Amino acid sequence: MTQFSSIDALRAACRDVPPPDRAAAAAVASRQATLTKPPGSLGVLEQVVGWLATWQRRAMPRLDRVEILVFAGNHGVVAQGVSPYPASVTAQMVDNFAARGAAINQLARIAGAALRVVPLSLERPTSDLSQAPAMSETEFLEAVQAGHAAVRPDSDLLCLGEMGIGNTTAAACLAAALHGDGSASPWTGRGTGLDDAGLQRKQAVVAAALDRHAAVLDDPLQAARCLGGRELAALLGATLAAREIGVPVLLDGYVCTASVAPLARLAPGGLAHTWLAHVSAEPGHRLLARGLGLSPLLDLGLRLGEASGAALAVPLLRAALACHAGMASFAEAGVDGCCSRTTP
Amino acid sequence: MTQFSSIDALRAACRDVPPPDRAAAAAVASRQATLTKPPGSLGVLEQVVGWLATWQRRAMPRLDRVEILVFAGNHGVVAQGVSPYPASVTAQMVDNFAARGAAINQLARIAGAALRVVPLSLERPTSDLSQAPAMSETEFLEAVQAGHAAVRPDSDLLCLGEMGIGNTTAAACLAAALHGDGSASPWTGRGTGLDDAGLQRKQAVVAAALDRHAAVLDDPLQAARCLGGRELAALLGATLAAREIGVPVLLDGYVCTASVAPLARLAPGGLAHTWLAHVSAEPGHRLLARGLGLSPLLDLGLRLGEASGAALAVPLLRAALACHAGMASFAEAGVDGCCSRTTP
Repeated sequence: MTQFSSIDALRAACRDVPPPDRAAAAAVASRQATLTKPPGSLGVLEQVVGWLATWQRRAMPRLDRVEILVFAGNHGVVAQGVSPYPASVTAQMVDNFAARGAAINQLARIAGAALRVVPLSLERPTSDLSQAPAMSETEFLEAVQAGHAAVRPDSDLLCLGEMGIGNTTAAACLAAALHGDGSASPWTGRGTGLDDAGLQRKQAVVAAALDRHAAVLDDPLQAARCLGGRELAALLGATLAAREIGVPVLLDGYVCTASVAPLARLAPGGLAHTWLAHVSAEPGHRLLARGLGLSPLLDLGLRLGEASGAALAVPLLRAALACHAGMASFAEAGVDGCCSRTTP
Repeated sequence: MTQFSSIDALRAACRDVPPPDRAAAAAVASRQATLTKPPGSLGVLEQVVGWLATWQRRAMPRLDRVEILVFAGNHGVVAQGVSPYPASVTAQMVDNFAARGAAINQLARIAGAALRVVPLSLERPTSDLSQAPAMSETEFLEAVQAGHAAVRPDSDLLCLGEMGIGNTTAAACLAAALHGDGSASPWTGRGTGLDDAGLQRKQAVVAAALDRHAAVLDDPLQAARCLGGRELAALLGATLAAREIGVPVLLDGYVCTASVAPLARLAPGGLAHTWLAHVSAEPGHRLLARGLGLSPLLDLGLRLGEASGAALAVPLLRAALACHAGMASFAEAGVDGCCSRTTP
């Protein structure tokens, strides 16, 4: 298994990712053209089949094993009052996942997906990112490694998500660091439901963090270490591993997208094996998605995390694949094709 | 069973539709507030559960019996070269549905829904709507009646769709008649894939139809008779029946939405029991949805018809309901609730 002995070693791995399998994509396009529907009429459904094929490296992709990975971490910055919930809720929600009481448990069942939750040193919150680097290099690399090791090579699709009271503050910092112009407010939202005073306080915390870590903001991995969190680092590691072993990834909301943004900065097409499952109600997420050139499958006002949006998008992929694999061709069905010209 | 002896009798039925069950909606809202998630964080998923409850008239809605109804009709206007496909394809696709080779067969399976296809006098195309009323009053009322009779009272959700070469021309005419300012072009799109010359021809046909039937455009049901088609009339009848017997409806694309637009004109909230499953790539659909105040669940560039978008949205509703019915409450899970204030 890959071991990241240093940030430089991790950076090298992020830069050396496999290219797309264009032959698999071409096989999909060629079958699509024969199916009993006007060309292109299934829209994005046709594109996602090509994407699955490209990154599974199979001419006929499959979705037999869909896995949801939820990483959980605690955040020192919660002491600054950036969330309406106490930090205790992170561990309580991990228990709720185990007891199958959370939204993601229900959504995983509907998606036909296996759910694994990976708590990351919940008893040791990261340092307050507005006062110090959130993590030491060792802590950061350990979390990246935990995410990397969690991905199973026999997965056909990986849905990523997170739980961590305070982590939209980390996401805002990281998104602003990588895609902003120095201002905090466009990237900072109400998270789980801050009131106006809480939102102002959170904006000030994000601004202070950007200021404190200004010297490292040009280095995406150092930014992820100083402004992130353990679950964010694990999401980056998991997304890198998925690319390496041929598993397409559905990204969830703002935290998830911010976590993997360094991969796009480090390699052209570094996120090509990911698809954004949904765009969150958190305004910074739409900005970040645009900055990364990611088009969401869903736009339903979710702002929960837990991989909820990613799980929700799985049936769309199953539907796309079912059409691709199961539809008759024009010849098989005896359906007349498109006229070469339409003049009567 | 209701019989529509005249257009006036149908108009009276469209005006006399049941009101929402506000008690069922209130029961949903009250349960939602206890579940282990920040209030509102499931976005539209929370709203659709309330909508299902309201129109199923049940405090705990269900989705045990989901039905997809696809109505098929043929159109005299095809002689004007408004489609790149020949009219023969309508019946061939009906055969393809029966042989389970079409997109909707695969999508129905993923949705866990039963599919029924209702061909409407395919051997007798409607009259060319640019030259004459598409249907006589008798033909129109028979088609409305066929749609009305097709809805089963034990359905928990009805997905509506259509198949009919040439029917986006009818949809454009009807949408322009009910929501336009007299011009044809904003409502007229490429349908299954017209080239530029075909699109210009289709726009001219729509303009001619609007001109020819100008005298009836203020009467939504006469507009539906003169500018529509049998499958459009059946979609109107089915949507009316669903309201009468307590079945929520997922609307599919442009043709489906245009078909039911008269119901919104005839009664305030006449489409409140429907949710628009998706917005089509056909530009007129977005305009029409906005005109009707309908917010689509999906926006994936589909332009196929067949109830494909409606079927695709079913798993979202199942997911929403699974969260509502299956999640633990804060008390059950022992999760701390939201602080009353966030100042640290």
